[in-house]
Amino acid sequence: MPDARLKPGERLDDLLTYELKIIQSPEVFSFSLDAVLLARFATVPPRGRVLDLCTGNGVIPLLLSTRTSARIEGVEIQPRLADMAERSVALNGLADRIRIRLGDLKEYESPDGPYDAITVNPPYMPVKSGEHKENLHHAMARHEIGCTLEEVTAACSRLVKRGGRVSMVHRPSRLVEITEAMRRNRLEPKRMRFIHSHADSEANMVLIEALKEGKPEVRLLPPLIVYHKDREYTQELLDVFYGRKDRLIDNGNKETEAETP
Amino acid sequence: MPDARLKPGERLDDLLTYELKIIQSPEVFSFSLDAVLLARFATVPPRGRVLDLCTGNGVIPLLLSTRTSARIEGVEIQPRLADMAERSVALNGLADRIRIRLGDLKEYESPDGPYDAITVNPPYMPVKSGEHKENLHHAMARHEIGCTLEEVTAACSRLVKRGGRVSMVHRPSRLVEITEAMRRNRLEPKRMRFIHSHADSEANMVLIEALKEGKPEVRLLPPLIVYHKDREYTQELLDVFYGRKDRLIDNGNKETEAETP
Repeated sequence: MPDARLKPGERLDDLLTYELKIIQSPEVFSFSLDAVLLARFATVPPRGRVLDLCTGNGVIPLLLSTRTSARIEGVEIQPRLADMAERSVALNGLADRIRIRLGDLKEYESPDGPYDAITVNPPYMPVKSGEHKENLHHAMARHEIGCTLEEVTAACSRLVKRGGRVSMVHRPSRLVEITEAMRRNRLEPKRMRFIHSHADSEANMVLIEALKEGKPEVRLLPPLIVYHKDREYTQELLDVFYGRKDRLIDNGNKETEAETP
Repeated sequence: MPDARLKPGERLDDLLTYELKIIQSPEVFSFSLDAVLLARFATVPPRGRVLDLCTGNGVIPLLLSTRTSARIEGVEIQPRLADMAERSVALNGLADRIRIRLGDLKEYESPDGPYDAITVNPPYMPVKSGEHKENLHHAMARHEIGCTLEEVTAACSRLVKRGGRVSMVHRPSRLVEITEAMRRNRLEPKRMRFIHSHADSEANMVLIEALKEGKPEVRLLPPLIVYHKDREYTQELLDVFYGRKDRLIDNGNKETEAETP
């Protein structure tokens, strides 16, 4: 019997542990490993207010809700995805803690002043790269059609409080652009972690956390290797993925305290 | 019987494989793992002219001589170290291929136009950091007394040809400063590799290679792990160290060709 909460083409997937469920649709959006790793990597305050930009079907707010009691808001520009996210929040009974907003991050204004922390999994590829054979939903999630790296970074800086943290997942090939854009917007990169498919392969993902108005000094965390040679997940990846190791690494809170203005 | 080529406080060490010897002095300078890894990592042309800045006792030119037939020049600001380097070059019979010059990289002018490639293992720490309890020789090798990161990068850019490569080893904590300084000086970071003491520890060294006037896109090479849990060197480190794997990784030559103006 079809689930009344689902629309055509959608399905209800388990969201890893925590008994969370998430509405997905292969046609328009399914969450990726990237989003899960960002949700584990990001420093979030125990309380307060957290914002997730480019929230898609809301996977990051849902996962963050297991790590913090903060109020979480997600902003998504595509109505179809924002609608899926909102229904996922409701069916998990999290409507009192997570709020999904349909909107453009370039114009988004916080209703209650700057946020304590921001997460963002932006589109990775410049518009000019490749041809967009996929539909517009996929294209907007992958290419900088709705927002560029500079616009994403500027929005993060504008919306986070001084001493607050902005965490981003992106492609390593754009690392230098990312750190430059962050610094231009007074976000100082403080923690980075590279993800490698195998121990002997180049990184294909990078997690970066910046501190608004922080001092220039960055920590390079241990590499995260996804697969063994036998193509099975490494134990560490599984620990992170299923939340057995909830943070990818020690928080560095002392430094946070020292630097928070 | 003392070696007539040595001065007081000096000793003659084996320089890994290749039957190279090097004059060292614990009082003033001994080469480090950092220099060896840089000498393996750097892209050097098979022929032409290569420059090593902050050459110290000449360890990098000596090691590079096993990987290229290029003419190699080393520049060192400390007379005591330049003298050691020059004698090491002579006792290895390499005086026809390696030339050590006493000088300040800020003012150094190439006698024959821009170089094909440059390597540099600069001092890592700002002058203000720590107190300099060590003698001036050690202090100058470790702290930015004789040259700052910006000055090193500017010298590299000034002395390398368009499409030539500049390879640097440094501390990961300064990564963002390094890539910014490189870009400011028209050196585009193209390859990076992080060195971790253990698989689960933060990186404590970074190798970066930039292309003069290159396009912005950087490759993040597999991490290099130095020690096993049992505190023995990893096989890969030994392979790199002893030159059994002469380059740390595939050269990416196609891209070099494509980008070389």
